[in-house]
Amino acid sequence: MTTPATTPSDTAPPTTKGACLVIGAGVGVGSAIARAFADDGYDVCVTRRARNLDQVETLAAEIRAAGGRAHAFGVDARSEDEMVALVDRIEAEVGPLEVVVFNIGANVRFGIRETTARVFTKVWEMACFAGFLAGREAARVMVPRGRGTILFTGATASVRGRDGFAAFAAAKHGLRAVAQSMARELGPLGVHVGHVVVDGAIDGAFTRETRPDVEDLLASDQILKPEDIARNYVWLHHQPRSAWTHELDLRPWSETW
Amino acid sequence: MTTPATTPSDTAPPTTKGACLVIGAGVGVGSAIARAFADDGYDVCVTRRARNLDQVETLAAEIRAAGGRAHAFGVDARSEDEMVALVDRIEAEVGPLEVVVFNIGANVRFGIRETTARVFTKVWEMACFAGFLAGREAARVMVPRGRGTILFTGATASVRGRDGFAAFAAAKHGLRAVAQSMARELGPLGVHVGHVVVDGAIDGAFTRETRPDVEDLLASDQILKPEDIARNYVWLHHQPRSAWTHELDLRPWSETW
Amino acid sequence: MTTPATTPSDTAPPTTKGACLVIGAGVGVGSAIARAFADDGYDVCVTRRARNLDQVETLAAEIRAAGGRAHAFGVDARSEDEMVALVDRIEAEVGPLEVVVFNIGANVRFGIRETTARVFTKVWEMACFAGFLAGREAARVMVPRGRGTILFTGATASVRGRDGFAAFAAAKHGLRAVAQSMARELGPLGVHVGHVVVDGAIDGAFTRETRPDVEDLLASDQILKPEDIARNYVWLHHQPRSAWTHELDLRPWSETW
Amino acid sequence: MTTPATTPSDTAPPTTKGACLVIGAGVGVGSAIARAFADDGYDVCVTRRARNLDQVETLAAEIRAAGGRAHAFGVDARSEDEMVALVDRIEAEVGPLEVVVFNIGANVRFGIRETTARVFTKVWEMACFAGFLAGREAARVMVPRGRGTILFTGATASVRGRDGFAAFAAAKHGLRAVAQSMARELGPLGVHVGHVVVDGAIDGAFTRETRPDVEDLLASDQILKPEDIARNYVWLHHQPRSAWTHELDLRPWSETW
Repeated sequence: MTTPATTPSDTAPPTTKGACLVIGAGVGVGSAIARAFADDGYDVCVTRRARNLDQVETLAAEIRAAGGRAHAFGVDARSEDEMVALVDRIEAEVGPLEVVVFNIGANVRFGIRETTARVFTKVWEMACFAGFLAGREAARVMVPRGRGTILFTGATASVRGRDGFAAFAAAKHGLRAVAQSMARELGPLGVHVGHVVVDGAIDGAFTRETRPDVEDLLASDQILKPEDIARNYVWLHHQPRSAWTHELDLRPWSETW
Repeated sequence: MTTPATTPSDTAPPTTKGACLVIGAGVGVGSAIARAFADDGYDVCVTRRARNLDQVETLAAEIRAAGGRAHAFGVDARSEDEMVALVDRIEAEVGPLEVVVFNIGANVRFGIRETTARVFTKVWEMACFAGFLAGREAARVMVPRGRGTILFTGATASVRGRDGFAAFAAAKHGLRAVAQSMARELGPLGVHVGHVVVDGAIDGAFTRETRPDVEDLLASDQILKPEDIARNYVWLHHQPRSAWTHELDLRPWSETW
Repeated sequence: MTTPATTPSDTAPPTTKGACLVIGAGVGVGSAIARAFADDGYDVCVTRRARNLDQVETLAAEIRAAGGRAHAFGVDARSEDEMVALVDRIEAEVGPLEVVVFNIGANVRFGIRETTARVFTKVWEMACFAGFLAGREAARVMVPRGRGTILFTGATASVRGRDGFAAFAAAKHGLRAVAQSMARELGPLGVHVGHVVVDGAIDGAFTRETRPDVEDLLASDQILKPEDIARNYVWLHHQPRSAWTHELDLRPWSETW
Repeated sequence: MTTPATTPSDTAPPTTKGACLVIGAGVGVGSAIARAFADDGYDVCVTRRARNLDQVETLAAEIRAAGGRAHAFGVDARSEDEMVALVDRIEAEVGPLEVVVFNIGANVRFGIRETTARVFTKVWEMACFAGFLAGREAARVMVPRGRGTILFTGATASVRGRDGFAAFAAAKHGLRAVAQSMARELGPLGVHVGHVVVDGAIDGAFTRETRPDVEDLLASDQILKPEDIARNYVWLHHQPRSAWTHELDLRPWSETW
């Protein structure tokens, strides 16, 4: 079950545009997306699995300290029961879900012969199955209202398999298929489904540890900045419905892709 | 050669963000893109072939009347000499080209056996060759400055051939290849190249004449609105360079694509 | 564990080109692929899950009656243990695996809100996870020999999501990503990995029950014939290694795709 | 106009399966395709532009010396008149065209700013416009008979733009769009249209001059062999119509693509 949410600050603005749920939001891109939607006036609900609840609580606290509205949840996004309960609870306690962002990845690299069934399954559960659950639960509450935005974070592996990436590419291709199938089904029902292909290294703990020239690259914008990525999610949500984007790619100017 | 440009209004704002050239701008999407960049503070240069100069002059006048800065040019976008001269002239008289939008299409439908060499060639000249010229001339002045945005308007036929669309799809596929090749070459030189796949019927003279239910469709946003399309071009131009989009699609919410 | 294989006929030809394993071979395309490789001189090993063992036993008996060599196995292709054991056993008792074909699909159609976690998971287990296991186990024995062919059966849903096909498209996209990642990794190790996109209705029990005009369509080749599909698998296996195909599509001449 | 064809040998087999036209056939892949269809029993008609007529005459002589039937034509494949006349003449003098292969490429590499209008146009005329003419003229005579095969040779640049390849990629993308549009239109009329993406270095004069390690690469099949490519064209032609391939890729086993 869902870990109790932290209480939003008493000083949060009394009015909101509704709820925005960001699944996988402790750090990096998910965190930046949450901040961006909070800045845009949404009551953001951020999740990580229960054992990392402190990460999203810190994030929520920072958002509230900056004048926004935020709620932290410890949730296993791969659990159907927990996701159903989470969406019900947000709808009941926070407000109507206007935006749901699925942002869990799980990049691993193994040669095919070294890829265990366990790894293949775990990567799929996190990057594809959990995305399906999030999308389905979002659709459940959005379709009856005839509005809402559901956004999925993709990667290079969403559109291309590569040596060593069978597990990750299978999961990300699968997530893209979910997004595309949902877009075609839910668009005519008033719900906007988008897929963002983030194609390059992103500023964060992993990049900072593995790339010795990271400071130079960051200074010259050669690494994707989470806040720059996040602005596109807010943009997609605000596109007027006569001209919706289903898919866009994002990469640094310097990337030779 | 280029037909003399109309003089910008004396009342135009004294400062500008630079020049934005929209090729194929008399009506519809091109016109909306020009207005959007004028609203955004650019000195817009709009072109049509000389015999339709009055269309872009009207557009430029409207933009100026609304407080913007605009210049009309009669240009054959398929003429290398005219395009070279046009870009030189804008750089000399208007300001540095920060944005170039290529927006000429030429949709035709013929069975393959009814497609004349003349039709195949004309469609390519307008939709592909002229796009190459525009892109190349934009690159010529932008690369030395290490900045600038070049945007191409695509269509469904840019990514899929179809019965009856050999000529149009060949031209639009070709234009997409130009855009993608340029993006990969010019990104690392600081120039942002984007391709927008407009996938659906657009509000305009053609749609209004051919679809009897057009008013209902427009009222319910089931037809692409030029101003909604245009906002995405401005958005692409303003993306920070750590996260540039090369390609995005646009279609109405109701489209079953 | 693997159900005991039926004994090959005493009259089977004494020499063979090696073993060809077809996973999911009781009926339709898989059965035709098995027959085609048996005709080509391979010792074919055909599998279905244990409860349908009689189907592959019948198939194996028919192949042997026609002068070929065939072995039937009852195997759960989703079980890592069973697949490991199956491949070990074929290598020990039948001969070196030269060809492995993964041919299990699991087409279902549900709106996203009606897609249960169980359905989404089951479809993935059959169409994607089992394909990964088959491919990995094939790689395990083929790579040390520096030769072999691994073929995966795809569908329209492998390359395009659609309304109602989130589960199926996710699984098939995932399988395609496995195939593509494996091709890039294993090609340089001497193993040929191919993906066949079968795009249209196939002659079989399902089509015969659901399309009233099936006889007319079959008579005019408007439905994919399993034996016509199968010949392409044999072709791919025999491509000389200077010119290998990774992906091809198959559809009836009359299909407007 | 068409340069007079050389007379087929008196010793050519009296019966044939019909005519096969290979446009761009003097050397390399085109030459191998012509030989393969001659071996398969077709009366092959091979073309090069008039000034290289000797190349195709040599090829035709070799084919006849090997017991096949072959005719050489000097033709400018970019000339509508010449292509119309060529097809008429083959139909009148050689036999019904059962196969037409378009095999002219024109790879060039220039940065976008160094790509002249002349180069962009010439590359398109050879690689795209001439392909359209060939396909259209093939369709003209095949559709009334409700049978025939039209094959186009593609390249990596057919599916991906790249730095320095704006001209070549635009032409090859355009040719692919022609092939795809024709396939969708002509399939239901009984004509099979295929597109072969040849993705890698091909054995030939260019490769032999530019790659110092060519002998080692050839010995280990790491360079595409024209005769291995050619066999796939014959295969596509013979696919039964219940299962036609529109597109396949070909690359050496060792290619990391």
